[in-house]
Amino acid sequence: MSYDNEAYELHPVELADRLRKLPEDEAAEELLAYDLEYSGEALEALDPWQAAAILQKFDSDLQADLLRHMSSDDSVDLLQELPRRQRRSVLNLFDELTRKRFKGLLKYPKDTAGGAMSLEVISLPESMKVGKAIEELRKKQKQLEEINYVYVTDDEGKMAGVLPLRNIAFRDPGVYLHDVMKKDVKTVYPEFDREKVARIFDKYDYLALPVVDHAGRLLGVITVDDVIDILRQENTEDMLEMVGISGAAEESIWTPWRVSIKHRLPWLAVNLGTALLAAVVVGLFAETISRFAVLAVFMPVIAGQGGNSGSQTVAILVRGIALGEIGRAQSRRALLKESSLGLIHGLAIGFIVACIGYAWTGSIKMGMIVGVSMVLSTVVAGIAGVVIPLGLKRVGCDPALSATIWMTTVTDVAGFFFLLGLGAWLLT
Amino acid sequence: MSYDNEAYELHPVELADRLRKLPEDEAAEELLAYDLEYSGEALEALDPWQAAAILQKFDSDLQADLLRHMSSDDSVDLLQELPRRQRRSVLNLFDELTRKRFKGLLKYPKDTAGGAMSLEVISLPESMKVGKAIEELRKKQKQLEEINYVYVTDDEGKMAGVLPLRNIAFRDPGVYLHDVMKKDVKTVYPEFDREKVARIFDKYDYLALPVVDHAGRLLGVITVDDVIDILRQENTEDMLEMVGISGAAEESIWTPWRVSIKHRLPWLAVNLGTALLAAVVVGLFAETISRFAVLAVFMPVIAGQGGNSGSQTVAILVRGIALGEIGRAQSRRALLKESSLGLIHGLAIGFIVACIGYAWTGSIKMGMIVGVSMVLSTVVAGIAGVVIPLGLKRVGCDPALSATIWMTTVTDVAGFFFLLGLGAWLLT
Repeated sequence: MSYDNEAYELHPVELADRLRKLPEDEAAEELLAYDLEYSGEALEALDPWQAAAILQKFDSDLQADLLRHMSSDDSVDLLQELPRRQRRSVLNLFDELTRKRFKGLLKYPKDTAGGAMSLEVISLPESMKVGKAIEELRKKQKQLEEINYVYVTDDEGKMAGVLPLRNIAFRDPGVYLHDVMKKDVKTVYPEFDREKVARIFDKYDYLALPVVDHAGRLLGVITVDDVIDILRQENTEDMLEMVGISGAAEESIWTPWRVSIKHRLPWLAVNLGTALLAAVVVGLFAETISRFAVLAVFMPVIAGQGGNSGSQTVAILVRGIALGEIGRAQSRRALLKESSLGLIHGLAIGFIVACIGYAWTGSIKMGMIVGVSMVLSTVVAGIAGVVIPLGLKRVGCDPALSATIWMTTVTDVAGFFFLLGLGAWLLT
Repeated sequence: MSYDNEAYELHPVELADRLRKLPEDEAAEELLAYDLEYSGEALEALDPWQAAAILQKFDSDLQADLLRHMSSDDSVDLLQELPRRQRRSVLNLFDELTRKRFKGLLKYPKDTAGGAMSLEVISLPESMKVGKAIEELRKKQKQLEEINYVYVTDDEGKMAGVLPLRNIAFRDPGVYLHDVMKKDVKTVYPEFDREKVARIFDKYDYLALPVVDHAGRLLGVITVDDVIDILRQENTEDMLEMVGISGAAEESIWTPWRVSIKHRLPWLAVNLGTALLAAVVVGLFAETISRFAVLAVFMPVIAGQGGNSGSQTVAILVRGIALGEIGRAQSRRALLKESSLGLIHGLAIGFIVACIGYAWTGSIKMGMIVGVSMVLSTVVAGIAGVVIPLGLKRVGCDPALSATIWMTTVTDVAGFFFLLGLGAWLLT
């Protein structure tokens, strides 16, 4: 909800900024200094887990009061973060209808349209006249602060059209809503993926998108400010998942330590497992290395280039998938382009590395070994960088999920195998 | 501009989707099948470089006609992508006033509020009455499709307040705009960073933000759909820059090959330089390696963990800086947290690695060497992961700019130095 009370100097979102940096006890105490509407607004501006941590300092009555002053989508996000028992106590304090609505919203996963929509929406029957509609809307003046569109329903309660509030005033009061509404309205079902919802807003420049059930009845609405939140969260999630930070959309330096460890350590352990694979490959050639230790000198060069060019490809793919630009139809194009770029980059860098290898050791063979293994590594990196994100998506994982860890495993293993294998073959 | 012509089956943004996948010649030909307004709308939906590539297939007259049917911010983005000579010819075809306006807009860099704003804005004097204002607005019915707020100016033409279109209809027609407008309007100057503009929208849930000159006169407006574009571009840029793809905000699998190579190869070359640093460190210990080749086996494990835990920290920092959560004041907190997490993760992973090292070689010394160098590496990774993005920002670079390349250099060099140095010291 938007808040224009000038009793307080701070805008509630600025209060939220301050609360974010305080320990939960102090934040809770500070919040008590403001009225419920203002406090609710500040809680809305916090991440749900932060708001929940503060809310837990209060008793159920105050919790329920605060939630009543928040918009329905934010209250539900917050309820989801509360411990199960507290959630139940709070829900029991609501009246029958509100409890039912909240329970309805709670069943939609957070990453769906249903999980992102709010129930604050106005609908009017299509048989109403414009003049009467303006009269009705005037009664809801307060709600209007938040609303840009009025939805129009037919006799059976199904979505029939939409009317932008901004031009309803310029219509003839005597005509029926049916005759002035825009009939071709895009809607989504509640189980629709919220990242795709964000892409629809991006593409069509919408301010709001109604959510309907499968019978076509209006359930709620997703507004553009929700979409900005979704984009922020999804982008953070992708960036963090790529390097193996998972489990929470939004880790930051404010995240408690134990939570950070829980997000990161498991993937470091996975990375250890995969690094041991590379170690085994190196171990296979231990004898070659002890005779030609200079091979070990080039290990970081080969692994570094393979890892880096593979990371470039992974980033392009993860981003392209997130923006809906790369689907199955584009995967061949991506594979062709990225593996060819790997070849071109490998030839360019490999030539330099071969010269350095020759200069370092005085052996043409050594120059060839490092040059050729560089080319092969970057080609493999291009392929792995495409296959891994697309593969993760295919098996139903997030394409970003530790894509970098999987990719560097492939490039390390392949790179060391090429370098040490060629060395063992050509030098002995 | 929003377009509701039902003469064509496709929505213009869907036409844009199709054009995006065609060679420029065919895309240009396809575009000619539609009227100017529709084609302009499709061009707006393309990336500016794609739209410019298509536009170059037409003569200046048609170019000018199409640009006239686009909103001012999109036309300027497109003009910026045209070769200088073509841009001049097109500008000469506009009338004096339009040319002056475009030239004014062209001087703002793309990443500023001025570069993102459009000129399509309605302002009315505060001495006007609501009834008269509605009458004025009714004349601009077409423009209203795009507009949610009317700005109110004082006698000197300075911004005095704002009036949401959605509730102007519910006001008494006899009162002055001065008495119903909201006076406390947030504005930005045209040189304001566009990423910060996006954060203001995110924080306050705005739909539009006026841009004013330093005398307070209204220049233009940034709308929430522009902000969604800004967020998409900035997020893509950050994700790609992190792995060393720079120079273009939005590389994708559709980017021409030579452009992709230009974005990526320079950073691969930098990476080669930095990888050679690591190679030099390994070279220093070539003799130790030839005696204890098993040390080479653990090189990928130490480098892999250091690189991975450092990447986690870099991602947290880059994202935190982008969201405006981490400034100078938070850098100590970040450094403390991330280096401590490095220590904790290092102890956990190091213990396992020490056991593996012992099991692999049967030497307690070897177990200690790999365990200790693991701990030291992840601590260094935590420090480097904080210092590099903050350092890049301090010297005026984008904090994401190849942060991963710099960070892995540090972790590789440090990791190999610890592992091989300890090995040389303890084993010989």
